[in-house]
Amino acid sequence: MTPKEKVAALRAQMKSNNVEAFIVYSADPHMSEYLPDEWQERTWLSGFTGSAGFVVVTMDAAGLWTDGRYFTQAPKELEGSGIDLFKSGIEGTIGYIDWIISQTSEGATVAVNGIATSHANWVDLDAKLTKHNRQLIDLPLLKDLWVKRPAPSKNEVFVHPIERAGQSVSDKISAIREKMKVEGATAHIISSLDDVVWTVNLRGSDVDCNPVFLGYILLTLEDCILFVDLDKLTADAKSLMADSGVSLKAYDAFYDHLNTLNNASILIAPNSNQSIFEAVKNKNTIIEKPVPGNLMKAIKNETEQEGFRTVMVRDGVAMVKFLHWLTHTAGKEPMDEYSIGEKLDSFRAEGKNYVGASFANIVGYKDNGAIMHYSAKSEGSHKVTNDGSILVDSGGQYLEGTTDITRTLPLGNVSEDFKRDATLALQGLIQLSIVKFPKGTLGMHLDVLARKPLWDEGKDYNHGTGHGVGSFLNVHEGPQSIRKELNPMELHEGMVMSNEPGYYLEGEYGIRHENLILIKTWKKTQWNTFYEFETLTLCPFFKSIIVKDMLSQEEIDWINTYHKMVDEKLAPFLEGDVKTWFKTLVSPL
Amino acid sequence: MTPKEKVAALRAQMKSNNVEAFIVYSADPHMSEYLPDEWQERTWLSGFTGSAGFVVVTMDAAGLWTDGRYFTQAPKELEGSGIDLFKSGIEGTIGYIDWIISQTSEGATVAVNGIATSHANWVDLDAKLTKHNRQLIDLPLLKDLWVKRPAPSKNEVFVHPIERAGQSVSDKISAIREKMKVEGATAHIISSLDDVVWTVNLRGSDVDCNPVFLGYILLTLEDCILFVDLDKLTADAKSLMADSGVSLKAYDAFYDHLNTLNNASILIAPNSNQSIFEAVKNKNTIIEKPVPGNLMKAIKNETEQEGFRTVMVRDGVAMVKFLHWLTHTAGKEPMDEYSIGEKLDSFRAEGKNYVGASFANIVGYKDNGAIMHYSAKSEGSHKVTNDGSILVDSGGQYLEGTTDITRTLPLGNVSEDFKRDATLALQGLIQLSIVKFPKGTLGMHLDVLARKPLWDEGKDYNHGTGHGVGSFLNVHEGPQSIRKELNPMELHEGMVMSNEPGYYLEGEYGIRHENLILIKTWKKTQWNTFYEFETLTLCPFFKSIIVKDMLSQEEIDWINTYHKMVDEKLAPFLEGDVKTWFKTLVSPL
Repeated sequence: MTPKEKVAALRAQMKSNNVEAFIVYSADPHMSEYLPDEWQERTWLSGFTGSAGFVVVTMDAAGLWTDGRYFTQAPKELEGSGIDLFKSGIEGTIGYIDWIISQTSEGATVAVNGIATSHANWVDLDAKLTKHNRQLIDLPLLKDLWVKRPAPSKNEVFVHPIERAGQSVSDKISAIREKMKVEGATAHIISSLDDVVWTVNLRGSDVDCNPVFLGYILLTLEDCILFVDLDKLTADAKSLMADSGVSLKAYDAFYDHLNTLNNASILIAPNSNQSIFEAVKNKNTIIEKPVPGNLMKAIKNETEQEGFRTVMVRDGVAMVKFLHWLTHTAGKEPMDEYSIGEKLDSFRAEGKNYVGASFANIVGYKDNGAIMHYSAKSEGSHKVTNDGSILVDSGGQYLEGTTDITRTLPLGNVSEDFKRDATLALQGLIQLSIVKFPKGTLGMHLDVLARKPLWDEGKDYNHGTGHGVGSFLNVHEGPQSIRKELNPMELHEGMVMSNEPGYYLEGEYGIRHENLILIKTWKKTQWNTFYEFETLTLCPFFKSIIVKDMLSQEEIDWINTYHKMVDEKLAPFLEGDVKTWFKTLVSPL
Repeated sequence: MTPKEKVAALRAQMKSNNVEAFIVYSADPHMSEYLPDEWQERTWLSGFTGSAGFVVVTMDAAGLWTDGRYFTQAPKELEGSGIDLFKSGIEGTIGYIDWIISQTSEGATVAVNGIATSHANWVDLDAKLTKHNRQLIDLPLLKDLWVKRPAPSKNEVFVHPIERAGQSVSDKISAIREKMKVEGATAHIISSLDDVVWTVNLRGSDVDCNPVFLGYILLTLEDCILFVDLDKLTADAKSLMADSGVSLKAYDAFYDHLNTLNNASILIAPNSNQSIFEAVKNKNTIIEKPVPGNLMKAIKNETEQEGFRTVMVRDGVAMVKFLHWLTHTAGKEPMDEYSIGEKLDSFRAEGKNYVGASFANIVGYKDNGAIMHYSAKSEGSHKVTNDGSILVDSGGQYLEGTTDITRTLPLGNVSEDFKRDATLALQGLIQLSIVKFPKGTLGMHLDVLARKPLWDEGKDYNHGTGHGVGSFLNVHEGPQSIRKELNPMELHEGMVMSNEPGYYLEGEYGIRHENLILIKTWKKTQWNTFYEFETLTLCPFFKSIIVKDMLSQEEIDWINTYHKMVDEKLAPFLEGDVKTWFKTLVSPL
């Protein structure tokens, strides 16, 4: 079926169910950032393959809302589908709820698949529709339409051993139960996949780049049940669950099991799917609070911290070898953005315990560097030669930890303006790297430090400065962040975050510098406990893009000290031409 | 009656009304920061005169909750009252709601005076009590008990003319109505006094230091009614109201009038008192949103901005004369913290259009400077001589604007540590003064800049960095702030704020430097509109407390440029010895 035929078939279903508008979010039952294949409903229906965007279909019209990253790609993919593009974030673009109201009649029914809609979103949508006399219902209309839906992954679920996790399953469950008691909860549902796999010290590969598997946890003060495709668990995984007091039930049995809950006070995160809330709300009390394990997961224990330090050496060695290859080969051999990413993967794959990429490589050559979070496809990828600059944002999953690094480098001539802008962004990275801050500080307090050098010239970047990073887990994790946006979560010792200021000049070039940083105690004073950041990432910055005159002595010292550390840690694993070249990179500024 | 007898009388009332706990907040019907005399219910009942704190009385016990500023004063004032002190902010101190639950029986009734309780607080309290099976009711038990309650002020209500307000009453009302339409409101209640007086370009003096009067506004899309003691309005004020389409009704007629509202959609701020909500909730729809005029008030128009600049010259001249007197008289003539404040008032009073202090002077000598927002009483005020440092935080109300300034200065020997700390706090003030920031920035993003020099040494201060300041209005106004605490309000061009980092070493000394700053457009770039601060306050900092070696060249330049501007603006109004001395203060560092 073509998208046009699919939309027509959907409309027939809508008609027979008396539904005037149907919304297809880009979501799975676990509200994952990356979706398993069988939950790519929006892509299946519309043909649009971007990572963000959702479709609304009414009897006479259909629209896709997506953001600036996809304004070129979306119209091409939507061609012939009868689905119009609505450009989110552009002034004058109608919001999808207002659009639904304009396209439906008073008293109309609007439907959505509750299992692929977060409760928080449902509540918001429901309130707005009700205000305009429209009714929201939960109806999975694509369930029967998408007959050739891919089967769920059968990938192995394996143990993430205590030597790497640093805390036993039993200890984690006990700690979560303590938090449940504080909240007055007798039961707790965990549905976000990284929280699920963290809790039970298991890993999988059901989702690209994220070492998670599809599962739910129902935790009571007495029992813990993991709902998972039982066939996928290794024997070791089954033993660990048995030894840890975790019983196993089929993934598909989860919602039926929820129906048996009675008189419980259930702690559920508001970003859990609506079907979970529907299943338990009538016979139980719901306590809407974040998953307690989410913050515990964000605070890395000593073992996990050491795991990060270990994999950073491997990742740094791979990066240096890759950067040597890139700078010495560009212009001599044919290459494009996509093939460069593949080459980088191959260097990482030489490292011990490498599992795969932690996200799709972002390789942006010249003006493509200015397209934020641009991910080159094999087809249509730009040729790369020995001219201009290139931005490479990539990361690896290793059994001991997860990496995420960006370097921007010249492959040939770059302008003075480029160097100045690259220096401003680097000053931002340094200023954030050296800050000392008291307990109680939020990420949004510190964000300004990474932007100030740019602000002083009337410049800025339109993305966050830092996100949490998992320990052999998702490369993006919460609950903390370093961004402009309101986030009440405090920064705690043990959190690992990215530090990635950038600068993007459309049609010209893109710059981003990114290290991972770990929050450590600096010192306790009579005022407070003060924290500092330990930089984990080990890879040189290119001195050839730094305008030294712009730097303060403190900033020059930071670069030299950082390069000295990188030298000490990586040099033992480098040799020959690569090592010789590397030594020039880490020599004092 | 003694406090003990008052509490006993209250208990008799509680018993006959079957109330097990009664809460007396420190509040009036307008949720004012400073209370009119007739609303000092907590002080009347307990004898405690501090600016913050509330009392809860049960049948067997009574408690006062207040913060660290009053831990010395409160026990003295509470002596013999039978009211125990609960130290807010100290670990282990029970919260008042938990305490109420522990002191009352299942199913008990808890009462509070709804007219002196904000709706937001009521909702929170009600939810927590209901959860523990206690019932909250609105019962003004002190109404009949406090028989000798002072009569409400009869002070004049006068016109704040368009030449100073910069915008007509009609224009303000039109602008508010536009916002009401956006929110779908047909009516709007304004109960916060500074919002009331701003809307109708009137001023009064019913509250110490705040040029406001008791009043409410009920605004519909057609009508505007000001509820006020009609006898207090000058003839000009009455004419202005008539000309502006504002009708007048008695202050006491307000709640009866609310009962007549029917089928209206009423915009009410959640920090309005509970009685307002009760009066309208059954027959109308309530839209809980901030008062639209509150943000309009915070954004000063050109006339108001010019008013600030004008009064800063007068205020600066008064400050310089005062500082000359203080530094040349301390140790030679007897003086104490209180008399110093009175002397400062007398210098301000020489200025044109001076109305009075904008808050109670804070004069802290030596270790008293470390008591935050210490306000010396005539009795018990410390003697001041020519040794150590003194912190003077004060401000004036002038017809054209409001000032708030802090200077910390040596009266004799000060330690090197003091100078270093004074320099750190000054660096914080400078760093905030020079920042450029894009539209959309919040105060909580910038707060770190004022703290960073202190953080770098493991130090901090436990108060906000900046608050909004009214235009011949309250010295503390919202909705914006520069603080660590979450506040989603953006900074807008035209806002006037304080910039007041400090440092407090208990038992030793206190430091605070404070200027008022105005947000102006710096430049528009392809990225955004960028703002900068214009420093309004005109008064030298004491170079004798600055450790020049600690400053960057940028910071030295800022101080010299600032002092040059202060010199240019103030020198024409100074003469003789004062001028000679002043010239030494503003000479380059």
